[in-house]
Amino acid sequence: MADKIFRVNMTNLTSTIEEVPPAWAGYGGRGLTSTIVSAEVEPTCHPLGPKNKLVIAPGLLSGTVAANSGRLSIGAKSPLTGTIKEANSGGTAAQLLARAGVKALIIEGQPKGDTWYSLAVTPEGVTVNEETELIGKGNFAVVDALTKRTGGKQGLITIGPAGEMKMGGANISIKDPDGGLRSSGRGGLGAVLGSKKIKFIAIDPKDGKVAIADPEKFREANKVFAKALVDHPVSQALGQYGTNVLVNIINESGGLPTQNFSKGQFAGHEAISGETMHDTILARGGRIKHNCHPGCVIQCSQVFNDAAGNKLTSGFEYESIWAMGADCCVDNLDHIAQADKLMDDIGVDTIETSVAFGVAMEAGVLAFGDGAGVCRILQEDIAKGTPLGRIIGNGAGSVGRAFGITRVPVVKNQAIPAYDPRAIKGIGITYATSTQGADHTMGYTIATNILGVGGKLDPLTKEGQVELSRNLQIATAAIDSTGMCLFIAFAALDNATCLPALIDLINAKYGLSLTGDDVVNLGKYILRTERAFNTAAGFTSADDRLPEFFYLEPLPPHNVVFDFTGKEIDTFWNF
Amino acid sequence: MADKIFRVNMTNLTSTIEEVPPAWAGYGGRGLTSTIVSAEVEPTCHPLGPKNKLVIAPGLLSGTVAANSGRLSIGAKSPLTGTIKEANSGGTAAQLLARAGVKALIIEGQPKGDTWYSLAVTPEGVTVNEETELIGKGNFAVVDALTKRTGGKQGLITIGPAGEMKMGGANISIKDPDGGLRSSGRGGLGAVLGSKKIKFIAIDPKDGKVAIADPEKFREANKVFAKALVDHPVSQALGQYGTNVLVNIINESGGLPTQNFSKGQFAGHEAISGETMHDTILARGGRIKHNCHPGCVIQCSQVFNDAAGNKLTSGFEYESIWAMGADCCVDNLDHIAQADKLMDDIGVDTIETSVAFGVAMEAGVLAFGDGAGVCRILQEDIAKGTPLGRIIGNGAGSVGRAFGITRVPVVKNQAIPAYDPRAIKGIGITYATSTQGADHTMGYTIATNILGVGGKLDPLTKEGQVELSRNLQIATAAIDSTGMCLFIAFAALDNATCLPALIDLINAKYGLSLTGDDVVNLGKYILRTERAFNTAAGFTSADDRLPEFFYLEPLPPHNVVFDFTGKEIDTFWNF
Repeated sequence: MADKIFRVNMTNLTSTIEEVPPAWAGYGGRGLTSTIVSAEVEPTCHPLGPKNKLVIAPGLLSGTVAANSGRLSIGAKSPLTGTIKEANSGGTAAQLLARAGVKALIIEGQPKGDTWYSLAVTPEGVTVNEETELIGKGNFAVVDALTKRTGGKQGLITIGPAGEMKMGGANISIKDPDGGLRSSGRGGLGAVLGSKKIKFIAIDPKDGKVAIADPEKFREANKVFAKALVDHPVSQALGQYGTNVLVNIINESGGLPTQNFSKGQFAGHEAISGETMHDTILARGGRIKHNCHPGCVIQCSQVFNDAAGNKLTSGFEYESIWAMGADCCVDNLDHIAQADKLMDDIGVDTIETSVAFGVAMEAGVLAFGDGAGVCRILQEDIAKGTPLGRIIGNGAGSVGRAFGITRVPVVKNQAIPAYDPRAIKGIGITYATSTQGADHTMGYTIATNILGVGGKLDPLTKEGQVELSRNLQIATAAIDSTGMCLFIAFAALDNATCLPALIDLINAKYGLSLTGDDVVNLGKYILRTERAFNTAAGFTSADDRLPEFFYLEPLPPHNVVFDFTGKEIDTFWNF
Repeated sequence: MADKIFRVNMTNLTSTIEEVPPAWAGYGGRGLTSTIVSAEVEPTCHPLGPKNKLVIAPGLLSGTVAANSGRLSIGAKSPLTGTIKEANSGGTAAQLLARAGVKALIIEGQPKGDTWYSLAVTPEGVTVNEETELIGKGNFAVVDALTKRTGGKQGLITIGPAGEMKMGGANISIKDPDGGLRSSGRGGLGAVLGSKKIKFIAIDPKDGKVAIADPEKFREANKVFAKALVDHPVSQALGQYGTNVLVNIINESGGLPTQNFSKGQFAGHEAISGETMHDTILARGGRIKHNCHPGCVIQCSQVFNDAAGNKLTSGFEYESIWAMGADCCVDNLDHIAQADKLMDDIGVDTIETSVAFGVAMEAGVLAFGDGAGVCRILQEDIAKGTPLGRIIGNGAGSVGRAFGITRVPVVKNQAIPAYDPRAIKGIGITYATSTQGADHTMGYTIATNILGVGGKLDPLTKEGQVELSRNLQIATAAIDSTGMCLFIAFAALDNATCLPALIDLINAKYGLSLTGDDVVNLGKYILRTERAFNTAAGFTSADDRLPEFFYLEPLPPHNVVFDFTGKEIDTFWNF
């Protein structure tokens, strides 16, 4: 099955299969979505109008048996940030799309009228079908209905009510192997799919397989690569405590944003920590480890049950727990898990939405610590699209503007995640300079600032942080193109066999002879391409800044402000 | 009384009187507010934070007996647009401030805590007083209370609940000679005053007078100037029908934005026209003519009574009537007048808020034509700051983002007023290029495109529109610095004696010998200064564009789109 471009025009409800233009041939994942969005989307177009395009691309290694290669990239102009956007996630869709022969699925145009649609992707092409039954339904209802309709083996990409209502916080959900959901969370891409009137995309690769140019070399490389992953202590901690292992670590560092970014430590951190979560899961008969896509050897996901032993949520991430927990001062893990499940069902980004709740608490909409209130507003307001639901569902910046709040943790209107840039300065450079708004995954300096991976760099000093963020952002852009989970980066930073093995995997699949330099150049190309889009959309270095309050309000306990000058930040782009 | 800079620091509640820096000496009104904001406000600061400053400046001729010289300029970084902003209005404050010796009042800093304040300005300085009684009250209650407290002769600058709640549509109201209100409407400056926790500013010039260097020359020039004004047919039409004379004229042109900018003519135009309004005022015992400040010889204001003969509203402008009327499809002048009164009392810009209602109608929040619903939402939601009230009170862009609407008539997030740029192309250039977001008053090409003042230029062709807008924007920036009402422009464009007489007035007051070239250079300086601020704040030519729908959706009845390319628009700045 040769990879092709599958294109759907929602204005006239037609689809085509096209050869891959030579200029796109070497790209996958984020490299491909950003290339296509840059080539085909007018940077100044309205993100919810007919000129925006949603591009869905598996990574270069997706669909193979390479460990941890199941990430799917989704790109568009973001309705939340106005920038170019790529959000990636696990689940089974990347592997199934690759097996269906889809190098990229491009969704363009916009239907007139109120009719909703779904797409069905097979190796033969895409069919556009009217959909009525599932409109207005939550993501879990879509999963259940599609399982009944198609038997549960198909891949599923779906939006909840938030995406239908075109909220800026709307995510796109991807079904995982057990009928759970993973999220392309950031940047409101669910609203773009909603603006095209598409409720879900079902993927059936039939008997499609991904071709491997040199299967023997591929197998060998995968052994080395997988061993590097499982051997790394961070991988092991992730398998044990999930990403939530970070609550106590970041709290200890003084960089755990608390009470809408007014403090760096949370008194209730123990109650929401990975350790507490681990023990709670065990006590309630949940699962400590769980993989979001077949072939994951880290298994940072888990199944978190309620007190009665019934599954409450999975894929329960540190950033979600921090946001609903410390940032909103909620120290009740059950409330947080309930909110997590609701957000997954409604289809909103857990980071954006929870940070938005933190700002809403600052505005007096509800009290800090009111986890039950959060769950109520999620169900009664955001899911139903009331005015309050619209304000919060459109993200932290929206809440700040609605209520005239100045302590609003966003960059390019996207909520800042779980690491305070005053106490962990490297991540502040990533937030400021990322082409996609504030996003820790774009250049995860926490690895070196806090975890001692890839060396150690004092989080409280300025020296070296720009270079650290630059190197990580370049590497991340490349990794996001492979279909690999970003958590391979810990091994890649510390184990000399890891990155060569990854390159060997790509070379073995495609019959190429790429080197480490090619990977770095790919990363640089992606960042430059994305930045050029943003520049044409009207972004300038004035947008590569943190909100004013980070400069004016010292953060306890270190009582430090973010003190990079604009000029210092701008040196990020010297490459 | 020598003019001084009065400065209030709201962080420590102190005030000073300072000499005028030589670099500011030649400026007044908008020229001075934009100079000071550019000099003292960080362009990237948060508009509602402690680093923004509100600058209030009478014009160069304010406080004299020169006809129509009572306009007051208020400047800051706008919370609505993020640009520099100057909004000017009538009322008595400009004259009283000038008589108190205030060349500019600069309000900076921000108090911590929940205490509200008022300022009292006299020739001796500014005192900062705690205020409790009037917090939460509407503007008319403030006028009434201050009249009781001080006898009614004092000038008054005030904000309503919207400004207290820091809504992006909040205006600043200025008391007129009869206790009515005029508005510095655009750009949310009321939110800036609210962010400084100032409810109102009372002005008592005591026996202060404005010095005139050459009184005889001044008197002579004023005679010529006033005659030019009263002789012009547009002045006379304004005195007869108010600015609302335009409803039928713009409807006839096919450029009256109707039903949230989906059509260019309104079936109900006769019911809301200036002619109908005139007859209704006469029938109900209102007043056809009314001046917003002493010395106005045009008197475009009026007193509009309800059916029982009680005053409902005054200063009832075409743009407000269009916005609530045609744009919201409300053909009931009483509903519109009631909404106008409510908006004045709550303290929101009638253009921004009414256009926001049009977008809300498009979103299905209420039905097009539901004037009673508008009044209800104003009272129950905007005045009380409910979530829906916050969404609408933050302006048209806010409503569009909240509900995922793409037909949102804003430029730089400020609502487009009463002239559709597809059918009247010159004004589209003004909307796109204005340093302040969409604003017809920044370069009123309607004069030449529609009214035949200053020549005639076909509104449906592109040729000459950029030059027309450029010349008018330059002239307007200069006029906005004099304290003169913009309606002197009609006479200035057509009567060769008008502009020389205006320059003579300035020369006679200050003992100068300015020429017409100096006026043009002043206008150019102001535009360049404002643009430099915006550029430093992160604005680019990508922001000098109309919304996408003006390019994609032809406007009936002419079925034309806005067809200027970006390059063509950008030639505006070739001066």
